[in-house]
Amino acid sequence: MSEKAFQDYYQDHFSHCYGCGRLNEHGLHIKSFWDGEESICIFHPKPYHTAIPGYVYGGLIASIIDCHCTGTAAAATYRAESREMDTEPSVRFLTASLHVDYLRPTPLGVPLEIRAKVKEIKRRKVVIAALLSAQGTVCARGEVVAVHVPEHLMSKGTSQDLTRAKRRRK
Amino acid sequence: MSEKAFQDYYQDHFSHCYGCGRLNEHGLHIKSFWDGEESICIFHPKPYHTAIPGYVYGGLIASIIDCHCTGTAAAATYRAESREMDTEPSVRFLTASLHVDYLRPTPLGVPLEIRAKVKEIKRRKVVIAALLSAQGTVCARGEVVAVHVPEHLMSKGTSQDLTRAKRRRK
Repeated sequence: MSEKAFQDYYQDHFSHCYGCGRLNEHGLHIKSFWDGEESICIFHPKPYHTAIPGYVYGGLIASIIDCHCTGTAAAATYRAESREMDTEPSVRFLTASLHVDYLRPTPLGVPLEIRAKVKEIKRRKVVIAALLSAQGTVCARGEVVAVHVPEHLMSKGTSQDLTRAKRRRK
Repeated sequence: MSEKAFQDYYQDHFSHCYGCGRLNEHGLHIKSFWDGEESICIFHPKPYHTAIPGYVYGGLIASIIDCHCTGTAAAATYRAESREMDTEPSVRFLTASLHVDYLRPTPLGVPLEIRAKVKEIKRRKVVIAALLSAQGTVCARGEVVAVHVPEHLMSKGTSQDLTRAKRRRK
């Protein structure tokens, strides 16, 4: 397994994500790593991440799959270009679509393992397929279509960042 | 618009959901109402529910669509049977599949409006389609296939509930 999480390579500007940003103090801090040709994420839901008592909330499952797959899309792009994730130009993805099939209720109180594979990698989009398991049993199956973050958001920051920067200058 | 939220009719056992359970103190407390033939949910993301700065986290969008649609599936079933949501037998749904298309980045800092419609209502499943808007612009489109909570979970509670009940008896 790779040592440093994909998300820990993200620039500060992209590290505020509620799902996986290291700078979001309220967030889930989802971390993804390579494990051979697959990427892997181990996630420990909190006791309050419940659907019906004893089972994991489906929205959390969707969130983990989403961040793990967009992270995998970025990592796979660097890998396809034979370069490290801390090299320029930097690459980040947004989710264009997310699909989750909930195959069975996911038990709460055990670590969840999410494994993802690249289904398709093209210039404009990357498709990632994921399986989420608990105690060796697959509980959910996901697919994410990830697209590159538009250039103006990559290079200039968002309007909110610019507003903040302008305020600081005053 | 109906006065009492769909989720406020759920029995206590089904009110611990992180997305919409009134008894989950850490949860999102998603509330859904009828507005004619559509159901509506207004949600105010927290400042930390961020994707890239200035925009709403996609996993949160998936979560709101999920709970709003399963709530709508339940409400629509009662409505199809011409009875109120506090009458027996009680009806609850789980998500079999969730699909979200993220059409454009969703701005953070404004209320989100989610409107849902019944696409299909059958004995075993209900299909709900939803649109999520911010300031009048549709930002995401979702579809949920909802299935009835299995009988053993409706009537007996989960294994965790039973364990707790046993502990109390000791």
